[in-house]
Amino acid sequence: MGIRLIGLDADDTLWHSEDGFHSVTGRFCDLVGPFADGTADLAHTLDSVERRNMVLFGYGVKSFTLSMVEAAIEVTGGKVPAETIQRLVDEGRTLLSRPVELLAGVEETLAALAGSYRMVVITKGDLMHQEQKFHGSGLDRHVEGIDVVSEKDVRTYSRLMSRYGVEPAAFLMVGNSVRSDVLPVLEVGGRAVHIPYEYLWSHEAAEHDGGVPTLTSIVELPQWLSSV
Amino acid sequence: MGIRLIGLDADDTLWHSEDGFHSVTGRFCDLVGPFADGTADLAHTLDSVERRNMVLFGYGVKSFTLSMVEAAIEVTGGKVPAETIQRLVDEGRTLLSRPVELLAGVEETLAALAGSYRMVVITKGDLMHQEQKFHGSGLDRHVEGIDVVSEKDVRTYSRLMSRYGVEPAAFLMVGNSVRSDVLPVLEVGGRAVHIPYEYLWSHEAAEHDGGVPTLTSIVELPQWLSSV
Repeated sequence: MGIRLIGLDADDTLWHSEDGFHSVTGRFCDLVGPFADGTADLAHTLDSVERRNMVLFGYGVKSFTLSMVEAAIEVTGGKVPAETIQRLVDEGRTLLSRPVELLAGVEETLAALAGSYRMVVITKGDLMHQEQKFHGSGLDRHVEGIDVVSEKDVRTYSRLMSRYGVEPAAFLMVGNSVRSDVLPVLEVGGRAVHIPYEYLWSHEAAEHDGGVPTLTSIVELPQWLSSV
Repeated sequence: MGIRLIGLDADDTLWHSEDGFHSVTGRFCDLVGPFADGTADLAHTLDSVERRNMVLFGYGVKSFTLSMVEAAIEVTGGKVPAETIQRLVDEGRTLLSRPVELLAGVEETLAALAGSYRMVVITKGDLMHQEQKFHGSGLDRHVEGIDVVSEKDVRTYSRLMSRYGVEPAAFLMVGNSVRSDVLPVLEVGGRAVHIPYEYLWSHEAAEHDGGVPTLTSIVELPQWLSSV
């Protein structure tokens, strides 16, 4: 069966995202370090707090910002001053308001595919932030819509395929996370293409068996599609 | 044309919500007051910070919690200790994890309507939190699904009606906010029923011309539906 609907992951597949979290984590260490014990592993504490909060806070910049606030208090034993906490919240605000920076070739590739395939963006994260990035990116010209979901699991993919009226075998997911964009889609009977990004959030780390098509850039996607 | 799809607002229409924000605002004043100038209007500062952050942070508990942190720092001129900031974040966590408490009559009313009408929940707020409350409430037995949207405006309602394949005249929205649940739906050509709640978030304040059907409880909805 031919591919009729392409699901596109957003963060680190269409536009840069994890590099921003990476850079703000560096700022977190710089800002909080002076108030912490010299032996404290600041980035590790932030990562632990983030994972602990995941089940209640979910994904996205606001969750990350709340976790920065908590990690700063925890790792300094409450010695971090309010002024520094304000600067951490400001770092979160900067992440939320930074302009969308598309990955190389995304605009041209989606424009080229738009005539032949239905496409939708399927992403986790803050609802409002992802919608703002989607509409700000101009990609809404080529893509049918955006679905911001709380988890990319088998249930979510099944629900979306059903809503879009597409059989699993006619659905292709394209994304940078094996855990979120590849494994659950294969489990449902769909297809997936993996396009790794420079940084991978540790929470998304997963392996596949090597049988998943892997591209180095989205610009290779049209050629791959014409070969299947 | 008869009503075929009922959109149900969630917070303060199906389950209690604003009473929790109201109560945490009281806790905010108690916790932050000792570090603020005696003349400071704490609740007013929190409300201002929340409105200022709305466009970037959006709706929901995480946004509210970040605004509490910022308002505490602002109103105390940075004198609020980290320990108190942690307690504010904990208040947000309590709001996120409190069990769903349905309004009186909701369960029975939706069970009664389920045989005759398609129903969907349409709500703003944190994506993950609203989905958790929806599934935790057990109302997913009676209702087709939940749409968490970043704004309840004309565009959002049009998009949803189109996705559910329903003409505006066959769509009824039921909710406690005139601004979000009534006015934009009427503008699109749909119908709306207003069910006020004990507390109304100031951001949602709006007036209608008196011609909108207003019920005192959702239990009156089946009878109203049978009369139109």
